[in-house]
Amino acid sequence: MKMKRYSLESAREELAALQRRMAAFDHATGLIYFDGATAAPKETAANRGATLAVLSEERYLMASSSGTAELLGYLEGRAGELSPKERRQVALMLKDIRRLEKIPVGEYVEAEKLGVESEAAWHRAKQDSDFESFRPFLQRMFDTKKRFAIYADPGSDPYDSCLGYYEEGLTKKTLDAFFEALRKEIVPLLAEVSAAPQIDDSFRYGDFPEDAQEKLAYYLMETVGLDLGHVGLTVTEHPFTTSLGSHFDERITTHYQRGDLLASFYSVVHESGHALYDTGSASDLAYTVLDGGAAMSIHESQSRFYENIIGRSLAFCRLVFPKIAGLFPEQTRGKGPEDLYLAANRVAPSLIRTDADELTYCLHVMVRYELEKRMFDGEITASDLPSEWDRLYREYLGIEVPDDRRGVLQDMHWSGGLIGYFPSYALGSAYGAQFLAKMRETVDVEACVEAGDFGPVNDWNREHIWKHGRLFSPSELLERVLGAPFDPGYYVDYLKKKYSSVYRLG
Amino acid sequence: MKMKRYSLESAREELAALQRRMAAFDHATGLIYFDGATAAPKETAANRGATLAVLSEERYLMASSSGTAELLGYLEGRAGELSPKERRQVALMLKDIRRLEKIPVGEYVEAEKLGVESEAAWHRAKQDSDFESFRPFLQRMFDTKKRFAIYADPGSDPYDSCLGYYEEGLTKKTLDAFFEALRKEIVPLLAEVSAAPQIDDSFRYGDFPEDAQEKLAYYLMETVGLDLGHVGLTVTEHPFTTSLGSHFDERITTHYQRGDLLASFYSVVHESGHALYDTGSASDLAYTVLDGGAAMSIHESQSRFYENIIGRSLAFCRLVFPKIAGLFPEQTRGKGPEDLYLAANRVAPSLIRTDADELTYCLHVMVRYELEKRMFDGEITASDLPSEWDRLYREYLGIEVPDDRRGVLQDMHWSGGLIGYFPSYALGSAYGAQFLAKMRETVDVEACVEAGDFGPVNDWNREHIWKHGRLFSPSELLERVLGAPFDPGYYVDYLKKKYSSVYRLG
Repeated sequence: MKMKRYSLESAREELAALQRRMAAFDHATGLIYFDGATAAPKETAANRGATLAVLSEERYLMASSSGTAELLGYLEGRAGELSPKERRQVALMLKDIRRLEKIPVGEYVEAEKLGVESEAAWHRAKQDSDFESFRPFLQRMFDTKKRFAIYADPGSDPYDSCLGYYEEGLTKKTLDAFFEALRKEIVPLLAEVSAAPQIDDSFRYGDFPEDAQEKLAYYLMETVGLDLGHVGLTVTEHPFTTSLGSHFDERITTHYQRGDLLASFYSVVHESGHALYDTGSASDLAYTVLDGGAAMSIHESQSRFYENIIGRSLAFCRLVFPKIAGLFPEQTRGKGPEDLYLAANRVAPSLIRTDADELTYCLHVMVRYELEKRMFDGEITASDLPSEWDRLYREYLGIEVPDDRRGVLQDMHWSGGLIGYFPSYALGSAYGAQFLAKMRETVDVEACVEAGDFGPVNDWNREHIWKHGRLFSPSELLERVLGAPFDPGYYVDYLKKKYSSVYRLG
Repeated sequence: MKMKRYSLESAREELAALQRRMAAFDHATGLIYFDGATAAPKETAANRGATLAVLSEERYLMASSSGTAELLGYLEGRAGELSPKERRQVALMLKDIRRLEKIPVGEYVEAEKLGVESEAAWHRAKQDSDFESFRPFLQRMFDTKKRFAIYADPGSDPYDSCLGYYEEGLTKKTLDAFFEALRKEIVPLLAEVSAAPQIDDSFRYGDFPEDAQEKLAYYLMETVGLDLGHVGLTVTEHPFTTSLGSHFDERITTHYQRGDLLASFYSVVHESGHALYDTGSASDLAYTVLDGGAAMSIHESQSRFYENIIGRSLAFCRLVFPKIAGLFPEQTRGKGPEDLYLAANRVAPSLIRTDADELTYCLHVMVRYELEKRMFDGEITASDLPSEWDRLYREYLGIEVPDDRRGVLQDMHWSGGLIGYFPSYALGSAYGAQFLAKMRETVDVEACVEAGDFGPVNDWNREHIWKHGRLFSPSELLERVLGAPFDPGYYVDYLKKKYSSVYRLG
């Protein structure tokens, strides 16, 4: 290996240039995926695959070549002379390289191949509700991820290593306490709610033409404060949010259901939360690895904050009802904001995580967390997953799983090797409730929302969360925002208060 | 420079890998432009610019680095051992490199910058119909292109060099003869048509909702034989066709005008012709520089063949009329295929090239050709362009140009340095007429079209033109297809016969 001679200045310039190149490649590959989900003709996946193979290889080499390692190593040695942003950039990039370096190349390539095959097997298996055909891939995926976790953090618990990969510093210990607190409170609360008279959600059902739903979607995006010059809306099968190249170009997607007004409605508000976070990043983080969210959980804290805490509040329902009534005069005749509020907050244990209501959502996540932990501990193998899945759904949600398609096969995460990822969804909800409590110390949240004045709410989030991008680890960020450790009690209180009121309990 | 040691085999593999990389980069940049014209939010151009800067630089280095020059030089030396396809790949790539090598780097960079500034100046100038603000850019662009042409082909006429850049082997001599033949015949024909009673084109005007126009667009794409699994349709401000990565992923775009049924209709048939050509490329040309059309003129020969020769024929009008009537029962009540045929073939000299009818189209191109030639000969300067433009429109088309926006500023081509490009549009139309004559020796074109059986027509085009991609130069391809030299007489005869019949002349 030829050693390069750097000056501090040339190395800093190279660091910036490297990140600009990485952002450009991420833009290109991100757009190719976006195109695949939107405008691309049906039989063009192989063509995209050919291009992605070339770009991914270059992108991989860019991040992990010996030249990059050398550059980052040099800068790490002079960390004291770097800005905090540069220091964090170097640290994050080195972390990825060092994790990769420990995996034998042959095993890495094998795992990439497994990922592709396993996702394809999952697609087929889900379609046919045939877990058995997917089982061997799933077992190999869990085995691989466990082995890689041991390579990466030889001294640590392998599942902790997986959790930490998606959220720096997250451990089973934290999550066990978190989920235990939730289970203790939510399962009984759910039982109470289930015993109470069911509320009427007929408001959401009817005939809602898509062009009017689209108008509503744009209205919602503008209402929560998105800058439509930089945030686009497109239709896809499954909604998502993505930044292309930098937070200056953000896309959210939705899927209209003609018979259900609130399906796209809350999906748009959820994705708008993600987009607010991304586009709220400080400008000087663009084209660096610090652009974007601090972690998946913090990202979900924002999307679920706007979707649930804001979007499903009575204040928000009052704000947006006139717009809905204007777009759908026939369908809303004789109805008011309270009908929207009730329809948005109906609780009903259900089979599919992505369709779950706010109260039961975390229980879906708990099932996955329990199973991942026990797979890693060796208590169960892939063969046990369907029956254990069904058992936990019975225990936590009180419902029977009729088939694996609507059970253990519903999410694609495991097939692609996303293990340790699910807990972020639940943590995000809980972080949001604690942020709300803190925000209320200085902002009259309800009054702002009902007045349609999102400035103070968004300013608070921008100042405390958005603008920092990935500058801080999630735990540092939480500490800075909250001035106190994370406490799931806020979330439990929020849920209890809200659903006691909605269902007029006790 | 470190010299590499190749074996023939390793060099051939590298040649293939290099072209796959180039195709991947072209896919990425092509998609970024496509996105800019379709889904991208309005204020994201700068973000795309940042990514395109990175990707273009890499793409440029890929095609013109010393390593690539060395590889291609080695393969050129062993050309006798290569396949015809590889020989052509090497020749085309070397041609580009050698053209670039002769331009001093500083001047090249300067010209790239000029291109960006000049396009921006043109946009503003067109908006305000203010030629004077664009004039200095335009003069510099013409000067630069002339200087580069002299660098590239020091022994040749500089305008011939520009023509040859877009169409190998094309010269002023050929074009002068071609346009002279057209002028001699079309200008008098147009006078006769203008003196005849005008035909009724009211069929095309009315209220045609966009969703039904979209259904019609897909019907047309399928009718002419496109495979919708590989060809997408999207809405943009200006219609175009593009391949992404390879001919396996083709996109056409259109723009619906609610008041005019035929605007999008014929635009879709035109772009479908381009898409048929691209997607008809032999599979083994994909991911090489031979994928795509032989030249712009041959590409236009196909798009204009489907749009005009096929699409504006009575046979085609009879084929598609029932579909139109089904989609627009109210608007077509009491009308028949002949009404569509007349509406599609109305001749009226007009100001804007892209809106021109089939008969006057070439006259628009001739104006541009004359002006380019005289700019290169030094007979006129940019200051003379507006008045000379207006004079030629009076002479060829018999109309007065009211302002520069609808005159010399209408096309963006010159602002971006596309000089020598316009003639291809006219040549394509003429090639198409000669192809038709040849095709008729073995295919009953009218009968096939009226029956909706595009197989024999498309097979003929595929076998003779499409499948070869860029394997042959345009003149080689013409010679192979026609077995005779190009003869504009076919086009003149076609136009005379058609418009004498439409306008019941003599």
